[in-house]
Amino acid sequence: MNPLAIPEIVIRRLPLYLRTLKLLQDQGQSVTSSQEIGDKLGISATQIRKDLSYFGEFGKQGTGYDVRYLQEQLQQILQVDSTWNLALIGAGDLGRAILRYSSFEEGGFSIVAVLDRDRDKIGRRIGKLQVLDIAKLPEVIKEHRIQIAIIAVPTNDAQEVADALVNVGVKAILSYAPIPLSLPAHIRVQHIDPLVGLQSMTYYLDPSQR
Amino acid sequence: MNPLAIPEIVIRRLPLYLRTLKLLQDQGQSVTSSQEIGDKLGISATQIRKDLSYFGEFGKQGTGYDVRYLQEQLQQILQVDSTWNLALIGAGDLGRAILRYSSFEEGGFSIVAVLDRDRDKIGRRIGKLQVLDIAKLPEVIKEHRIQIAIIAVPTNDAQEVADALVNVGVKAILSYAPIPLSLPAHIRVQHIDPLVGLQSMTYYLDPSQR
Repeated sequence: MNPLAIPEIVIRRLPLYLRTLKLLQDQGQSVTSSQEIGDKLGISATQIRKDLSYFGEFGKQGTGYDVRYLQEQLQQILQVDSTWNLALIGAGDLGRAILRYSSFEEGGFSIVAVLDRDRDKIGRRIGKLQVLDIAKLPEVIKEHRIQIAIIAVPTNDAQEVADALVNVGVKAILSYAPIPLSLPAHIRVQHIDPLVGLQSMTYYLDPSQR
Repeated sequence: MNPLAIPEIVIRRLPLYLRTLKLLQDQGQSVTSSQEIGDKLGISATQIRKDLSYFGEFGKQGTGYDVRYLQEQLQQILQVDSTWNLALIGAGDLGRAILRYSSFEEGGFSIVAVLDRDRDKIGRRIGKLQVLDIAKLPEVIKEHRIQIAIIAVPTNDAQEVADALVNVGVKAILSYAPIPLSLPAHIRVQHIDPLVGLQSMTYYLDPSQR
């Protein structure tokens, strides 16, 4: 099937299934069901079965899914069964926090370079990486065959950085800046937005208590 | 309608619609359509109309939605038409980056307290706030009528902090820790997880180039 024939919203749910399967595996569980995955995510079992059916048959009626097998299948579908090199732009508070985030490797990613334009930050060591001058972006992207970058710069610099990334061939951007980025249609962009998480919880709270 | 009768997955899409409407409004657009919102989010127009129909009629066939009106309606539905006080736990790199995030206020939130257990951080000033001793959590939560907290502590401390928050009456938690939290069923939890964003883009990339 043409990969683009599958609705993007389906693709965006697969990482949630993958995270849930990993959680179940960490808890020592070897078999699960669409009902159980759905309960953990607030998604209906029907939706999950429908999403998975785009890609094949992963379980048997009545016996459920093998946790490890379904995890491997989803990793293959999402192409995270081997590692993508990432560049991180921005070595401030946020950049340092991202570098300390421990789950990239197991998720299929490795931050291989961190770049900044601030003279005070360039040359400093953060964990295993030394902060590089943003002027070195073209070489770094080429050397490490980087297609994905994370933007963790001040809001006002985010668009300029995104443009520079696209110019050197980056195809996908994860942005922590709280603004929409204006980019060519073929570039993939995802935003980390705490408001989306917060606003989907307030619906359930009692506003008279605030 | 009973608020719990609406599927959670519908509620979780509303903040995305709200963000898109805000973007359109910032661009000076006064009317939009489910098609346009859908195109920006990778969600079908039918899905958007179906989601909104749970809450009423917000547009007229053929004339689309008034951007400002629909925004106000969604803010009311999500109960972010006035402000929720938040507590932030963790005043490290990540906590400082979160405090600098500029969109909380316009999204319906105000971080009114930041707490940490680290003696070196307590008493320091970050922006307008002074870092408080985590031991003061019960008083802080009570004084500011806080129902929502953000966890930005090291992974190994996240569960303990979450338990402490629940004990003092917090009802909703946004966690940046890359681990699932084990909490009572009535507590709302959302995770900020960069892997979900990254893994939903790799599907579209060319793995032979990495």
